[in-house]
Amino acid sequence: MKVSSCVWLLVTLTGTILGAAATERNCSATPPFLPSTAVNTSLQLQELRERLIPLNISAYIIPGTDAHQSEYIAPRDARMAFMTGFTGSAGTAVVTQTKAALWTDSRYWVQAERQMDCNWELETDVSISSLAEWLISEVPPGGNIGFDPFLFSLKTQEHYAISLESSSRSLKSIPINLVDQVWKDRPPLLPESLTRLPDRVIQRSWQLKVEHIRSLMRDNPYKPTALLLSALDETAWIFNLRGNDIPYNPFFYSYTLLTMNEIWLFVHTHRVTEELRLYLNTSCNESLCVQLRSYDSVLEHLKSYVSQPEVKVWIGTEYTNYALYEIITPQEKLMTSSYSPVLTTKAVKDETEQQILRDAHVRDAVAVIQLLMRLEKIVPDGKETELSAAEYVNKCRSKQNNSRGPSFETISASGPNAALAHYSPTAETSRRLTVDEMYLIDSGGQYLDGTTDITRTVHWGTPTKMQKEAFTRVLMGNIEISRTVFPSGTRGVNIEMLGRRALWEVGLNYGHGTGHGIGNFFGVHEWPVGFQTNNIPFRAGMFTSIEPGYYKENDFGIRIEDVAMTILAHTKYGHNFLTFDTISLVPYDKKLIDTMLLSSEQLQWLNSYYKKIRQLVGPELDKQGLHEEKDWMLRNTEPFPELGSSSSISSSSLTFVALSIALLHNII
Amino acid sequence: MKVSSCVWLLVTLTGTILGAAATERNCSATPPFLPSTAVNTSLQLQELRERLIPLNISAYIIPGTDAHQSEYIAPRDARMAFMTGFTGSAGTAVVTQTKAALWTDSRYWVQAERQMDCNWELETDVSISSLAEWLISEVPPGGNIGFDPFLFSLKTQEHYAISLESSSRSLKSIPINLVDQVWKDRPPLLPESLTRLPDRVIQRSWQLKVEHIRSLMRDNPYKPTALLLSALDETAWIFNLRGNDIPYNPFFYSYTLLTMNEIWLFVHTHRVTEELRLYLNTSCNESLCVQLRSYDSVLEHLKSYVSQPEVKVWIGTEYTNYALYEIITPQEKLMTSSYSPVLTTKAVKDETEQQILRDAHVRDAVAVIQLLMRLEKIVPDGKETELSAAEYVNKCRSKQNNSRGPSFETISASGPNAALAHYSPTAETSRRLTVDEMYLIDSGGQYLDGTTDITRTVHWGTPTKMQKEAFTRVLMGNIEISRTVFPSGTRGVNIEMLGRRALWEVGLNYGHGTGHGIGNFFGVHEWPVGFQTNNIPFRAGMFTSIEPGYYKENDFGIRIEDVAMTILAHTKYGHNFLTFDTISLVPYDKKLIDTMLLSSEQLQWLNSYYKKIRQLVGPELDKQGLHEEKDWMLRNTEPFPELGSSSSISSSSLTFVALSIALLHNII
Repeated sequence: MKVSSCVWLLVTLTGTILGAAATERNCSATPPFLPSTAVNTSLQLQELRERLIPLNISAYIIPGTDAHQSEYIAPRDARMAFMTGFTGSAGTAVVTQTKAALWTDSRYWVQAERQMDCNWELETDVSISSLAEWLISEVPPGGNIGFDPFLFSLKTQEHYAISLESSSRSLKSIPINLVDQVWKDRPPLLPESLTRLPDRVIQRSWQLKVEHIRSLMRDNPYKPTALLLSALDETAWIFNLRGNDIPYNPFFYSYTLLTMNEIWLFVHTHRVTEELRLYLNTSCNESLCVQLRSYDSVLEHLKSYVSQPEVKVWIGTEYTNYALYEIITPQEKLMTSSYSPVLTTKAVKDETEQQILRDAHVRDAVAVIQLLMRLEKIVPDGKETELSAAEYVNKCRSKQNNSRGPSFETISASGPNAALAHYSPTAETSRRLTVDEMYLIDSGGQYLDGTTDITRTVHWGTPTKMQKEAFTRVLMGNIEISRTVFPSGTRGVNIEMLGRRALWEVGLNYGHGTGHGIGNFFGVHEWPVGFQTNNIPFRAGMFTSIEPGYYKENDFGIRIEDVAMTILAHTKYGHNFLTFDTISLVPYDKKLIDTMLLSSEQLQWLNSYYKKIRQLVGPELDKQGLHEEKDWMLRNTEPFPELGSSSSISSSSLTFVALSIALLHNII
Repeated sequence: MKVSSCVWLLVTLTGTILGAAATERNCSATPPFLPSTAVNTSLQLQELRERLIPLNISAYIIPGTDAHQSEYIAPRDARMAFMTGFTGSAGTAVVTQTKAALWTDSRYWVQAERQMDCNWELETDVSISSLAEWLISEVPPGGNIGFDPFLFSLKTQEHYAISLESSSRSLKSIPINLVDQVWKDRPPLLPESLTRLPDRVIQRSWQLKVEHIRSLMRDNPYKPTALLLSALDETAWIFNLRGNDIPYNPFFYSYTLLTMNEIWLFVHTHRVTEELRLYLNTSCNESLCVQLRSYDSVLEHLKSYVSQPEVKVWIGTEYTNYALYEIITPQEKLMTSSYSPVLTTKAVKDETEQQILRDAHVRDAVAVIQLLMRLEKIVPDGKETELSAAEYVNKCRSKQNNSRGPSFETISASGPNAALAHYSPTAETSRRLTVDEMYLIDSGGQYLDGTTDITRTVHWGTPTKMQKEAFTRVLMGNIEISRTVFPSGTRGVNIEMLGRRALWEVGLNYGHGTGHGIGNFFGVHEWPVGFQTNNIPFRAGMFTSIEPGYYKENDFGIRIEDVAMTILAHTKYGHNFLTFDTISLVPYDKKLIDTMLLSSEQLQWLNSYYKKIRQLVGPELDKQGLHEEKDWMLRNTEPFPELGSSSSISSSSLTFVALSIALLHNII
């Protein structure tokens, strides 16, 4: 099982580990020291190297993704882990006849040192240009570098090609995966059937969606005749189907090729029940009939489609793999955009999706409140651990209506463990929770109506001044983004600095992104919405997480994450401006908030947010008969005194009052 | 002479004109109406069209730039203007056998309607993809689209190629410019010699600069053997030379090819005096000798250099033209980055450059203060106009030490004219200045030690509430950027929203960029520093303008522009954080500032800025014997009362005071 991630790392966070001397490999010792967690990879390396020779390949690249460029992958796609021993969720491995190297980012360095044997180098600069530099130094001039074209997006291939173009080394596409050839006990495909979403969570039938996408194709000036859908959530979205191939993600292996008159769905056809065949109208070939084809036939089918005259296939460059891209020739038959029109359409939720996603967050808040109340009560007893807390919140979620399990592996981290932004506890690392350490919980649920993702950081004892200041500044970042007003069409990347500014002011920062889109019973990181460079501009009706943080190495970690929806803002002079409406509904730890740092606008925002929690979560707690939780929630959403009200009047004003009174009394 | 621009337009501002019914063409009238300002282009169009036929070209693209991708161009490069009649500084023209169209952005639409005859369509979406769509609709399948490869950057060519790739129309590079062939009285090259900068404004000799750039080439992992410099300020910078080819810009036509052992300078060699030949060490061919070659031989020379084995030429993709790029083959001989190492090195000023650029801004402030004081005095008499004000500020600058004329055409705009962000007055449009209209002056100077660019907006009567609010919010934007603290390496585009946020809050915005780099006796828009997407990250020692604005169509325009330098910020916890130090030193119009809208941090910033103006400009005014101006400056830099001091106590606090007093007296 891969480690899930809920924050997007952009730059490095040094991930050291505590008291870990004997848990990491030491390849410079004689003999080399290997911890028990290290995997012996000599055999698979030897077999893979043998296969490189007849193909005349000097190096072979093994990405950590699947044919759909998925962030989370199925165990049968964990080729990088099989080859290296390293099971982190992000990385790329390269094997030559004499060397083997793994590139992964800082959150996984410790894990890699624990899991890899001394066959492997660990490389820390994960940019493609750094990887290319390594290849140039290891591969002789004129040498070939092999890759599986199904595991490279067309963009990835382009990056490699550009980085290698001035060298005399060539990329060579090898359509048969060489790791699969040496992976004897590769996990099989799961047998589960696909399921369709119930009508109550759907506004648009698959037929309506297909017709809408066709209208976008028709309106496009380049006149595409077909659209190829490669990302797993594209096909799942358009047909209102879900599956079970990827942990935490209700996706299934699939492609779709859509033309004006036909629809071809490439899946493992034995998973499509009779009921679904009826639903999909599979027994015909008209424009609203879905023609089932086997998953493995997509390449051949696309090739034959492209061989026809006057066709043009629209693909999204971020998710289409190079194997499919390279057969769309000549260039006149290709049309590209970063994201397919399915992904950009899906990014704006319809009213039903908006409402059920909001509703799911009300129930999700109940589970998180249950956890926070429980921890507050029992942590002082000393029996709770990171692992038991994670289990408890998962259990609370599972009792909520429409629950379909967690949406990623819960990050439950105490003290220094929370300084590793992506830490998830294991039996070995799980810390006991105490009143002396801060605690961070980043968790989320899948519900039939929505996906959730929320982070709260708390302290059950007495936080230090620095902890309180850092927490308050992280909160200020969250509030500043949430309350900002901006023109529709603004890119997240152009406003995300508001999440950092209060930290920057005192020389602090965080090394990950500030938020990502989220789906309706879909991916917890739903592209292309969010605050990254390659996210699309905000329009009304999008959902994104907002999650600034601060991490003090070997000490503590803070993150405050809420999901928010973009809504129309009412402004004095303008139209078409947006703001955020926060739909995660759990109070922040009052003890960690230094209200003196907050502006009056921030305090106002906080109080109106707390009012909303009371209005929306209160009735749900009542309904579920959770009276103690209701009291806890009410206690923790007491309004803060606002600036200008008597209790928060500034000291200089008080001086003025004193002075005025003195004057009145002729004392001075 | 082209219209200079001081603001970068990103999105559209509707530029309508007042009482202009008879000044714009009307091609749908019978017969068509043409104003006296329209240029008859029938002849040149006919001649150009004849030349397309033997070349088998269906359309010919005429960009508004020169072979160095200059923003400002020499009259002899104004091919677009010659063909269309339109003299604006930005645009692209396309001619087919039956149609002729001009693309320009909103600031120039009115001007285009006044200057073009009915041979020309005006197209308003200036994106290359929109231009490509037009081409696809006008050029038959299989048709060729011709362009002069010297006038396309390699990036521009790539954009066109991508936009056309799915159509069956091809770009065809035509190395001889077809407009030049029909342009009989094309202005000749100017005869002026080049000049070298005096030692007192230089810290690094050209030899030091060359060696530094060579060290960057040596350290580059791709091992380039040569660097080609194409932008005009690249060659001028590296040799500490200046010229006179381009209005307002001390540039001269040139290229440089630099290797580890040789330096080739391509210029009009007759312009290089004996003294300069000595200075450049031109009589040898060692590593620090400059070998002069004729400007026109660059292509042949590069071709012969590239034909050698084991060479690799480094170019910047933003400024290298396609003609030079396309001869660097095969691909192994090419190495690209967005900007050459000369441009990225130049972006950080050395200590001498920093100091003299600051000094130039002190003298420049004197000129602007002289203008503002004069206008305040004489506008009520009703004799001052936009033109006379522009002339006056130019005259004031010309009297300052080291003056080398204006750095762009002064924007002097009253009332509705200021709503056109790039308006410069002409005899026809110049408005009389009155106490009833706001007035915007955007101007700058070239000095031997620095280039300046500053905008102030004032009102001599009673501004409306809306004007005051809008001005204050623009000022808040300027202050928020100026005072923000951010990590070194942050991109301008990621913090420029701070310039807009106070406007966004009430539904206002502006349609241009927020700032651009500036040079030392160089371009007033010096790339690659600034707040645009293609600007490089900020490091300490860079200079940029900060210039938010607000424009109310047919009513008024506001812009507040200062130049600021990035300096290290001292923060509580961190290192390597930056902030801005404003080096433009002219007070803002007090009458237009609503201090109630400002935060206490903004007021503090304003007061310390005013203190700095007094400290730096005061002695200069004394030195120049400008006593009245000194008094004016002191009056206009009186500190504002800050929040927390008694005079600015908030009304709610006052209520509290009243209440307290009432209680004390047992009144209630």
